[in-house]
Amino acid sequence: MTTTMAHPDVNSRCAQAALAAPAWAATSRPDRAAALRAIAAGLNRSAAMIINAADTETKLGQPRLRSELTRTTYQLTMFADLLLDGSYLRTVIEHPDPDAPVSPRPDLRRTMIPVGPVAVFSASNFPFAFSVAGTDTAAALAAGCPVIVKAHPGHPTTSELVADIVTQALRDSGAPDGTFALVDGFDAGPALMTHPAIRAAAFTGSVRGGRALFDLAVNRPDPIPFYGELGSLNSLVVTAAAAAARGPKIAADLAASVLLGGGQFCTKPGLILLPSTSAGRRLRDDLADQFTRAAPVHMLTPQVRHGFENGCAALQLDPGIAVLATGQAATGAATPVLFGANADQLPDVALDECFGPTAVVADYSDNDSLLTATTRLPGALTAAVHAEPDDHVLLAGLVPALAGKVGRLVFNQYPTGVTVSPAMHHGGPYPASTAAAYTSVGAAAVERFLRPVTFQNAPQGILPVELRD
Amino acid sequence: MTTTMAHPDVNSRCAQAALAAPAWAATSRPDRAAALRAIAAGLNRSAAMIINAADTETKLGQPRLRSELTRTTYQLTMFADLLLDGSYLRTVIEHPDPDAPVSPRPDLRRTMIPVGPVAVFSASNFPFAFSVAGTDTAAALAAGCPVIVKAHPGHPTTSELVADIVTQALRDSGAPDGTFALVDGFDAGPALMTHPAIRAAAFTGSVRGGRALFDLAVNRPDPIPFYGELGSLNSLVVTAAAAAARGPKIAADLAASVLLGGGQFCTKPGLILLPSTSAGRRLRDDLADQFTRAAPVHMLTPQVRHGFENGCAALQLDPGIAVLATGQAATGAATPVLFGANADQLPDVALDECFGPTAVVADYSDNDSLLTATTRLPGALTAAVHAEPDDHVLLAGLVPALAGKVGRLVFNQYPTGVTVSPAMHHGGPYPASTAAAYTSVGAAAVERFLRPVTFQNAPQGILPVELRD
Repeated sequence: MTTTMAHPDVNSRCAQAALAAPAWAATSRPDRAAALRAIAAGLNRSAAMIINAADTETKLGQPRLRSELTRTTYQLTMFADLLLDGSYLRTVIEHPDPDAPVSPRPDLRRTMIPVGPVAVFSASNFPFAFSVAGTDTAAALAAGCPVIVKAHPGHPTTSELVADIVTQALRDSGAPDGTFALVDGFDAGPALMTHPAIRAAAFTGSVRGGRALFDLAVNRPDPIPFYGELGSLNSLVVTAAAAAARGPKIAADLAASVLLGGGQFCTKPGLILLPSTSAGRRLRDDLADQFTRAAPVHMLTPQVRHGFENGCAALQLDPGIAVLATGQAATGAATPVLFGANADQLPDVALDECFGPTAVVADYSDNDSLLTATTRLPGALTAAVHAEPDDHVLLAGLVPALAGKVGRLVFNQYPTGVTVSPAMHHGGPYPASTAAAYTSVGAAAVERFLRPVTFQNAPQGILPVELRD
Repeated sequence: MTTTMAHPDVNSRCAQAALAAPAWAATSRPDRAAALRAIAAGLNRSAAMIINAADTETKLGQPRLRSELTRTTYQLTMFADLLLDGSYLRTVIEHPDPDAPVSPRPDLRRTMIPVGPVAVFSASNFPFAFSVAGTDTAAALAAGCPVIVKAHPGHPTTSELVADIVTQALRDSGAPDGTFALVDGFDAGPALMTHPAIRAAAFTGSVRGGRALFDLAVNRPDPIPFYGELGSLNSLVVTAAAAAARGPKIAADLAASVLLGGGQFCTKPGLILLPSTSAGRRLRDDLADQFTRAAPVHMLTPQVRHGFENGCAALQLDPGIAVLATGQAATGAATPVLFGANADQLPDVALDECFGPTAVVADYSDNDSLLTATTRLPGALTAAVHAEPDDHVLLAGLVPALAGKVGRLVFNQYPTGVTVSPAMHHGGPYPASTAAAYTSVGAAAVERFLRPVTFQNAPQGILPVELRD
C-alpha cells in the first residue's frame, strides 16, 4: 500500500484545505455561484495579460487562446447556473409509508454532498480550459470542494497569474482561506495523491503520468476516486460509399481536424480507416497532399515534442507501417507526418495514441475486414464514421462495435471541438479515462466531486435546504 | 500489474458472457423487464424449496427468509419497472445550435449503454437478496450486462437452486446463452477479477476479502470499476437530553437492533456513544441487561463465527475496553457480548467492525468530547443520532461531522432495515464502500453498470430508440 509522501508545501496546503472543507461545503449554492462568477469576471478583467502570458508559454496563438478563455469563463458561469438550478443534486424526498412494498418505509430524503478536498492536475494543451481555473476546478468548487491545483510545468507564469485571480475572487466572495491553492514541482503530484486530506483527483494528460497517479490513488490505505483522462486513439472510418460520394471534401476537412492546434488535442483523429477502393486510394492520396503542404508545428513543450518524435520513430520502425507524406520542417519545430498501414495486419504500435500532427491511414479490404479491425481498437474518447444512407447494413454492425469502445460517436463530422453542454460526454473506456462513467466536460462533470447521502427521519431544521418540505 | 489467472470454468463462462454481451445489450428494455419478471415468478414458484434450502444452510429461520425472498422478487420487479420507465438512462437531446455559447453546437444526444459482463460476489448474510438473484444481479441484468455470479460457500445448494431458476427464466425469455452463469470455489474470485472480458464487479462482504479483489480490479492492465461494500462501523449517538427523555425505550430498541439477525447485518450499530450522565449510565445498564438475557446465535458459517470470536478477543484484550455483559451460551453458537470504553480514549480496535452480536458502548464526558470522538470515526454506511428538539446547537456541529463520514444519517430510529426505494443510499466512504458515489440498494444501483455515450449528428435510424426525435 501507498504511504504518504512528505512534501512541506503540499502538506500545509492540504491541511488548510481540510480546515476549509466544512465551511466551503456549508456555503449556500447562490454564494458559491457568485464566487464562480467572480472568478470569471476576474479572468475577463485580466484577459490581455493572461492571454499574452499563455501565448508566450504555449505558442498556441492569440486567437485560439482568446477563444479558450471565453470557453473557460463560460464553464465557470455554466456551473454557477447549475448551482442556482440545483437539479444536479438529484434529490429524492419520500415521506413515510406504512404500506410500502416489503416493509414500512421511514421518511427518506436523498441529496448530494461534496467529497472534500480535490487535487486537480492541469493539462499542457489547454492552459485555461483544463488548467488552474478550468473545468475540473470549476466543477469541484461548484460541488463545494476545496481545490489544490498542481500547476503544469508547460505554463508556470500563466498558472500563477490565474491562481492569483482565483484566490482574490474567492477572498472577495468570502470563501474560507484554504478553499483554493496552487502547488508546483514534480514531487507535488505523488504527495497530493497520497495525502490523507485529498478525497478525489482529476487529471488530464498522458497515459504514463496518469496511470502512475491512478496507481497511487487506488493503492492508498483508503482508496480515492481518480478521474483521469489519459490518452485516446480516435478512430475515423470512411465507408466506400462516403469515399466515392465526397472523398476530396473528407480529405480536406479530415487533414484540418488532425492538424488543428498542431494535433495537440485529445480528440485528434489518430487512426483513419479507408476502403481499398479507387475512391479510397484517391482520398488517401489527397490526405497525403494535405500533409505534404502542412506547416511545421511549434509544440506546447519540449517534452511534448519529444514524445511526438518518439511516437513517430516507433511507427516508422515498424515494418508494417510506411510514411505516406512528410510536411514542412523548421528548426525547433515538429514536422507533420502521415503514416500508412494495412487494416488487416495493423501493427500494435498503430493502436497507441501519438500526440501531435500525425495519423495512421489503414486500408481495409472489405466490410468484414473493417469490422474485424474495430475489435482491436482500444478504449477511446471518440470514434467517427463517414457514411452514406445506403450504408445502413454496415452501420448496424459497426455502430454497436464502435459505441462499445468510446464515449462519443460522431457521424459525418470530426471529433475535434468538444461542445460544453449537458449532452456532451467526454470520457470513455480505459485508457481514454480511468472512470468511464464520468465526463470531464459539461455540466455532468460536477458529479465527480459529489456523493449521495440519505437523511432518515431527520428534523426539518437540520436538513439541507433542498430536502426540506 | 495483475495478469490473468487461468481457471477453465471461469474462462469458458467469461467467453460465453463476452459473446452474449452485444446481444443482451441489444434486447429491448421491455424484453429485459419481462426476463426480470420471469426470474421473480420462477423464484416465487419454487419459494418453499429454496427457503428450505437456505434455512438449512444459513439457519436464518423461515420467517426471515420468507421476507427476504419477498424483498428479492420486489427488487427484480422494481428494476423491471425502471426499465419500462426509462428515466434511469438520463437522456439529453440537444438539436444543433449555430448560436450556442463559445462555438456552434452540433446535434448531440446522450444516453447510457451497458458496460459489458459483470462479476457479482454473493454475500453470506443475505442468501437471496444479496446473492445469486439479488440486487447486484438484478441491476446488472437490467442494465443489459451479462452476469457471472461467484457463489458464496455459505449456501452452495441455495445458490445452485436459484441459479437454475435464473437460467431457466432467461432461456424462456429468449435471452442469449451466456447471459448468466454461476461459478464457485475460492480461485474463481481472482480469476474473474483478472479476466479481460469482465468489465465491472459488485461485492458484498468483508474488508479483507473485498480489498483483495479491489486490488486485483484496479491493478489490471485495464482497471475496471469494483463496487465493493466491505465493512461498516455504524455509530449511534444518544444525546444527554435523549437519554433523559427516553433512555429505557432506547435501550430496548437499540439492543434489538444490534442483536437482529444475530448482529449479522452490515448496518448493525457497532459503536454506541452515550453521555456520562446518570441517565446515560442507566441506559448503559439497561443495554447490559438486554445483552445478559440475549439468546446464543447460530451464525451463518463457521468462518463468520470465527471472525466474530476473533473480533471479540481483540476487543477483550485491549486494556481500554471492558466486558459490560455476556449473553447466553450454547454449544456451537456464538455468545452475545456488550463491551464498554471511554469515548475520550477510544482504542483503535473499537473503530473496527466486529460482525456479529456485539457492540461497544463508549461514554463521552460532554458535547466537545462527543464531537472530538466523531472525528476519529471511519467511513461507514450509516450513523444514527437520538436527540431532542433542544439539542439543536449540538446537532449543528454533529450532523455535518457525521454526514461527512456516512452514506445515511438516521434520526431517532435505527439503521438496521434498509428500505428498497429511490431515496435510499446504501454506500459510504471507505471502507464502507470502494465507490462511495454508488448505492447497492435501490433503483440507483443500476448506475454502476452503465456508462454514458454521446451520439453526434447521428442518422435517426441508428440511434437507440430513446434518443430518436
